[in-house]
This record gives sequence, C-alpha cells and structure tokens, in this order.
Amino acid sequence: MIDIRPVANIIGWLLAALGMIMIVPAIVDFWAGNPDWRVFMISAFITVVAGGLLILATSNAQGSGLTLRQSFLVTTLSWTVLPVFGAIPFEMALEHVNWTDAIFEAMSGITTTGSTVFTGLDAMPPGILLWRSTLQWLGGLGIVLVALIFLPVMKVGGMQHFRSEGFDTMGKVLPRAADISWMLLQIYAGLTILCAAAYVLTGMSVFDAVNHALTTLSTGGFSTRDTSFALYDSAAHWVCVIFMWLAGLPFIRYLQFINGSYRPLFNDIQIRAYFRWTLYAIGAVFAYRLLREDTAVEGMFRESAFNVVSMFSGTGFGSADVSAWGDFPILVLVVAGFIGACTASTGCSIKVFRYLVLFEAIKAQLKQLVYPNRVIPLHLDGRRLDEEVVVSVVVMFTAFVVGFGVLTVLLSLAGLDMRTAFTAAWTSICNVGPAWGSEVGPTGAMNEFPVFAKWLMIGAMMMGRLEMVAVLVLVLPRFWRG
Amino acid sequence: MIDIRPVANIIGWLLAALGMIMIVPAIVDFWAGNPDWRVFMISAFITVVAGGLLILATSNAQGSGLTLRQSFLVTTLSWTVLPVFGAIPFEMALEHVNWTDAIFEAMSGITTTGSTVFTGLDAMPPGILLWRSTLQWLGGLGIVLVALIFLPVMKVGGMQHFRSEGFDTMGKVLPRAADISWMLLQIYAGLTILCAAAYVLTGMSVFDAVNHALTTLSTGGFSTRDTSFALYDSAAHWVCVIFMWLAGLPFIRYLQFINGSYRPLFNDIQIRAYFRWTLYAIGAVFAYRLLREDTAVEGMFRESAFNVVSMFSGTGFGSADVSAWGDFPILVLVVAGFIGACTASTGCSIKVFRYLVLFEAIKAQLKQLVYPNRVIPLHLDGRRLDEEVVVSVVVMFTAFVVGFGVLTVLLSLAGLDMRTAFTAAWTSICNVGPAWGSEVGPTGAMNEFPVFAKWLMIGAMMMGRLEMVAVLVLVLPRFWRG
Ligand SMILES: [K+]
Ligand SMILES: [K+]
Repeated sequence: MIDIRPVANIIGWLLAALGMIMIVPAIVDFWAGNPDWRVFMISAFITVVAGGLLILATSNAQGSGLTLRQSFLVTTLSWTVLPVFGAIPFEMALEHVNWTDAIFEAMSGITTTGSTVFTGLDAMPPGILLWRSTLQWLGGLGIVLVALIFLPVMKVGGMQHFRSEGFDTMGKVLPRAADISWMLLQIYAGLTILCAAAYVLTGMSVFDAVNHALTTLSTGGFSTRDTSFALYDSAAHWVCVIFMWLAGLPFIRYLQFINGSYRPLFNDIQIRAYFRWTLYAIGAVFAYRLLREDTAVEGMFRESAFNVVSMFSGTGFGSADVSAWGDFPILVLVVAGFIGACTASTGCSIKVFRYLVLFEAIKAQLKQLVYPNRVIPLHLDGRRLDEEVVVSVVVMFTAFVVGFGVLTVLLSLAGLDMRTAFTAAWTSICNVGPAWGSEVGPTGAMNEFPVFAKWLMIGAMMMGRLEMVAVLVLVLPRFWRG
Repeated sequence: MIDIRPVANIIGWLLAALGMIMIVPAIVDFWAGNPDWRVFMISAFITVVAGGLLILATSNAQGSGLTLRQSFLVTTLSWTVLPVFGAIPFEMALEHVNWTDAIFEAMSGITTTGSTVFTGLDAMPPGILLWRSTLQWLGGLGIVLVALIFLPVMKVGGMQHFRSEGFDTMGKVLPRAADISWMLLQIYAGLTILCAAAYVLTGMSVFDAVNHALTTLSTGGFSTRDTSFALYDSAAHWVCVIFMWLAGLPFIRYLQFINGSYRPLFNDIQIRAYFRWTLYAIGAVFAYRLLREDTAVEGMFRESAFNVVSMFSGTGFGSADVSAWGDFPILVLVVAGFIGACTASTGCSIKVFRYLVLFEAIKAQLKQLVYPNRVIPLHLDGRRLDEEVVVSVVVMFTAFVVGFGVLTVLLSLAGLDMRTAFTAAWTSICNVGPAWGSEVGPTGAMNEFPVFAKWLMIGAMMMGRLEMVAVLVLVLPRFWRG
C-alpha cells in the first residue's frame, strides 16, 4: 500500500493556497459593487477549511519526501481535486450553471485548455471573469513546475532527457527546488506584467489587459469577451502573438538567460524547430488565403499569424472566423495543435521535442533497415538519445493517438456530430480550446454539448495535460500493490 | 552503387507474367463479342515485350540472389511499374479515361485498395471488369508473398517477429521458398474457387461470382456493380462476410493447417484478437442502430456485420448507405479500417499484431514507471518480444499516423473538402476503398477528384500497401551510396 498521507498533505496545502487566492476576486467584486464577493468569500472559506483539515490530518507525514508513486498520485490528484474546489464559485454565483458545467469550466481553466461552457461573457461580473483567468494562470505555473520537478524523475514522455538540464545543471547556481520554483514564479509573473502593460498600451482596459495577460502567458485562452480577440486593435493582436509564442518556450531557458547564460535560449534545437515550424504554418495559411481571398493583406497576414500561433502554442484565442477561410487553413491549425509548443512551457499537446525524437527514430530505423547489422545510436542536437527516452516518447505518442481515436468515437456516441466530435477530442486532449461543428455555439461555447460529452472532455483535458501516461499509470493494479 | 540488374530481371519476369495474364480478359471479351479483346492483346504484347527486353538485358544477372537493398528496390518497383502496365488496357479501351485515371484504377487494383474513378460499371464490357478484379487478386497474392518472404528479412514493421515462423519452422516440412509460394497459390486459389462457388449458390451469375470472389479473397473490394453488394441476396452477403474475414487471417496458418498442424490457426493470439475486436465492432454498430432505427432486425444485423467486416479486413465492399446510419457507426468503421486485419494476410492497414505490440509496449512502459530500476521484458503470447521488434512497430505506426496527417492536409490543399480529404487519406493509406464527402460521386466513385488529389492517393496507396517504411527507406541518400 502507498502511504497517501504525504500526498494528502500536499493537496491540503495546495487547497489552502487556492482558497486564499479566491479572496482576490472577492475583493474585485466587492470593489465593483457586485454581490458575488460573498460567494468568493464562502468558497474561499470552504476551500481553506478543507485544505486545513487535510493538513492537520496528515501533519505527522510532513517532511518525509515523496516516493515515485506518491509523485504520480500528487500530480493526478492535484489536477482532479483542485478543479472541483475551483468550480465552487462558478456553481454558486451563476444560477444557470450546474456542477457539470462548473467543473468543466474549472478543469478547462486549470488544464489551460480554454474551452468554455459559459456564454454572455461580456455581461459577466468581474470576479467570475478574473477567477477564470486566475485558474489558467495557476494551471500554467503548475504545469511548468511539474514538468521541471516531477516529469523528469517520473520519466514521463521522455522527460528524463532533460533530467541533467533542470536541477543538475542549474544546481551549481541554484541548489534547491524551492529556489528554482521561486525564480520561475518571478519570471512567469514578470512576463505576465510585461504582457498586461503592453496590452494596456494598445488601448485595452486595465481589467481586460490583466485577464488576457493571465491567459496569454498560461497559453490558456479564456477571454473576457465572447468574441475573444476579434474586438481588439491590431496592435493588441501582435502583442498577443509575441507573448503566446514566448509562453511556448521552455521556461528553463529563461532561468538560464536571467542567470547569464544567453546561448541555451538561442541554441535550443527545440526552440529553433518550433520557430521554423511556426513560420511554415503561418506561410502556408497566409499564402493560401492570399491566392483565394480579396481582402486587405495586412489583416490577412495578422490573422494568419495570430491564429497559427494561437493553435501552435495551444492558447486558443480567436481573432477571426477561421472556418470561413476554408478547410486547408483549419487543417493546418489542427495539425499545429497536434504538435504543440516546447516541453516545460505552459503549452500543451505532444510538443516539438517529441516530434524531433520521433523523426530521429524513423531516420535511425530506416538506416537500420539498410545496415541491419550495425548499431545505430540516436542523437538529438549532438547529444545521445537514450533508447529509454525514445521508447518513452513513442509510447506517449501512441497513447495520445489511440486516446484521441477512442475519445472521438465516444464523443460521437455521446451524440456529437463527426466534425464536432473530432475537434472536441482534439481540443480537449491537446488542451487547445476551440472546436468547430454544428453543436458549437456562435461564440464558440460548448454549453449545448450533452452531459456525457462534457464529462468525457473533463477527463480528457486532465489526461492530456498530464501527458496521458502520468495518469494511465494509476490504472495499473500493481501501482497500488506492494 | 546498387547492382540493379537482378532487380530489373525480376521486374521483367513479373511484367512478362502480367502480360500473359492479360490474355484471359482478351479471351473473355472475344467470347462475349466485345471489340476490347484487341486492346487486351495489344496491351499483352506491349507488356510481354517490355518484360522480355528487361529479362534479356539482364540475363547475365540471373541466379545471383538478392541483397537486402535489392529486396527493397524490387518491392517498391513491383508496386510502381506493374500498375503502369496494368493501366494500359484501361487507357486504351475506355475513351473518357486518361492516364491519371487509368493508373489510379490500376494502382487501386494492385494495392487491393478498391477505390474507383470509374462509373457505369454495370454497363462496362466484361474484359475490363475482369481485368480490374484480376489486378486485385494478383496484388493480394503478391502482398502475402512479400509479407512471408521479404518483410521478415527486411525487418519492416516488426515482421522479423515472424521470421522463425515462416521459413524456419516450415523449413522442416518445406525447404524452399518456391514450395511455399506454390502451396500458398493453391490455398489462395482454392479459397477463391470455394468463394465463387458459394456466390453462385446464392444466385449470383457466374461472371459476377468469379469477379467478386477474386476481389473478396484479395480484400480488394472492386465490384462489377456500381451499387457494390446492395443488389445481391442476403445469402451472398453472409458468404462475403465469411470469406472477407478469412482473407484477413495470416496465410501461414492455412499452410500449417493443411500440413496437419491445426492448433496454430486456433491458438494464434492475433487471430483471436481480430475475432474479438470484429465482434465488438459489429456489436457496437448493431446496438447503436437497434436503439435508433425502426427497421427489420435481421437486415440491420447483416448490414452491420457486412460493413464492419468489410472495413476491418480492408475490403471495402458496401451493402448499404452507411452514412445514413449516423456518425458513430461511420467512426467505428473508420477505426476498424485504421486497425486492419492480421499480418501476412491480403488485408492492409496497421494490422492487429502491431496494436497488440503497441499495447504491450504501453503496459510495459507503465510498469517501468512504477519500477524504474527493474528490467521489464516484453512478451506477446508467451514469446519474448525483441526490443528491435517493438521499435520497428512503433516507427511504422508513427510513419502511418504522421503520413495520414500530412496526406489529409495535402488533399485538402488539392481542393478536397475536409470530410472527403480525411476519408480519402484514410482509404488510400489504409487501402480500404470507400470515402465519404461532397466530392465523392453517388456510386462512391472518385472521378471528380482534382488530378493532384488523385496522384497523392496513387502514391499513398502504394506506400500504405508496402507498410510505409519499405518505401521510405528509398529516400535515404545512403541507400543509394556504398
Ligand atoms: K489553451
Ligand atoms: K480494399
């Protein structure tokens, strides 16, 4: 049996923190004269008490450190328990919102997916809007920490490749995980403040700027507007493009950058591939539209860049009705979403690193076919790729692909049309945000989806965010034994 | 440099054989009083002469055996050169058919895909219809021989797992490849004759019965009717279900069965999984329709079984308008097509064996995550799975998935609607046959597809049939060097 006390202890602390943060929207609503401040105070109270009780009940377990299995449990439980408590304000404040919708929205927030079941965002009280954005910002921070601290040790999706990069290399400068986390928080908060300031300069209101900055840096994609970015100025679009793209870079590079190592940021093979592929995708969409449409070139280029970067980074903001561009641009966007940004960013999906490993594996396999008796070692960026990393990556890729297929079929069984089922499966497993199809509302909301479909997506968002295998390992009976 | 003379020599012999076989439709057309017999005789002459010249030019290379690289070259060239010559009768006999369409049809034949660009099949002369069916039958025989003789040595898609099963185990009984090929031909022909006889018993005309038997055992799916199987009796449907399913079994098991080893056929883990999965898929489609439709139960069950087995085996016959059943049944059919039947059958796609290996790899990886320091060997059916086999399988799977994604995007760029692009990419890479979407004609024909889309599909059918990697290896520059 696993000792779950240290796990419960951490969940307790996370809940207590989440409850404390709920006071921020309470203050905003109080200040705006909105009665919802009571809801947030009650939710904060419930969450802090629940967290406090967990901490008290498990206080004897503190300081004992986590085993490997406990790490797996902490990761999955964090992304299961926190959304439930994060959903309390939605359920209490909005009368037409039931528990399914509230948990959907909170899970979509914490996993930085950005799919929404809410409509009429423009008329919503500021506290609720801020809470949605805050959940995404916290979820983005959380996933970067998990990717830096847990995944390399858990060896999920080939992340052990970065083991020596994270704490070991950094170790000379920053000996402890708490230090890294603290620096990371500063970088993440700093970028968010920069982004918000830039939005304000483009003419966005301070409230909108803060919310969109929170959901840009987390590649979350929740907006305070039903029309997402379509309403804003072209300057705001470019600010968004830049920060969405930056949010897709490995945050460890920013840490190194700030500590005086500039080269890793510019020499990272993953960042370079991400840069090239983004340009190719923008070029393909822009060229296609240029040949077929007769609208202003600047707008066409900006919209192409905005929506490609939005999908590639997994943010999911929209600036235009992309479904009017034709099927080829949409497919490019879908493929971009299936790729995703860099590892250890706030971005999601399979990620550039894993495609680089897959392509290396295919190349090596083809060479192997020509030289059957030669040992062909795999390299990435001059560094040896462990066989273990390759297997780990292909297993994660296979789990993603098979999971996507199964989810599409199940969503269709739940009653969604094929196009909706396909894009909803994609958007939830890859944590992108938008979906297209007849059941999707005019503002992109998924409130009309059947309940069963919503729950399937809730599960898929969570599994996709934790790179599938980190959750699947819990279904092994032997995980719980001995 | 590779010595291509032995390769050209084999291609020469194959062309000569193909040319001789063209005399059969010539005789049929002559007997039916159709002027096309001249076309077939001219085509036969051209093909035999081309083959003969190749044989003569390379006669000094005979008997030298094939190196590994020559084996790769023979495989890809067979599925490239033969379709071109096989297309000659189509181009010459049918005036509205250009080279693109003729080669599409011949490639769809030899790869046993079964997609067609021809309409008005019911009114077509018998020689042309028989030639289409014959191409599929030959392609089916060819791929089983390749799977038994070449792929295990070429180590494509993990087929080295079966190395000891084919010639080594059988070696005690049948020492030479020629013997196996001969026995295989007898089994394949025997099953085809059985199938044709059964069709005749259900009331099908002898001509239709022979043609459909040729395309059933090859899991090809060309029909002599625009409406495919919808016209025929329910007994014909059941005969077809049985033989399509049997065509999806590993032919090596039939060889063993005939040689007195009955157990391998019934104990094969791949066959058992294929059996179970087929039943699950039929059950899912049937149950879904039962709950939603108000038609006769027998017909509903028969149609469900027919179309599921048709897609799972990769045959592609149709007995009903499946798009009217709703999106869930179609997705089940699409998933079945992505799975495919057993290795070393005439069936196509990724195949059950590879999914079994992938699932084992995922299970082993999850165990590895729990026990990071333990060595976890992979087993399939009590037999050790080589790491090499696993890597080979996942690389083939990845190549299929990435290839499918790229092809869908390119087909959409060629001008196809998203649904059409998606199903056309699926049907050509998985060699299934049908596609759904606005550009597909009322009889399922793809004659209205843009020329670029047709050529993309021609390439994809060939690559899919040769399990992707067997073709991709030719693009390595070092394949041609040294
Ligand atoms: K997102
Ligand atoms: K077929």
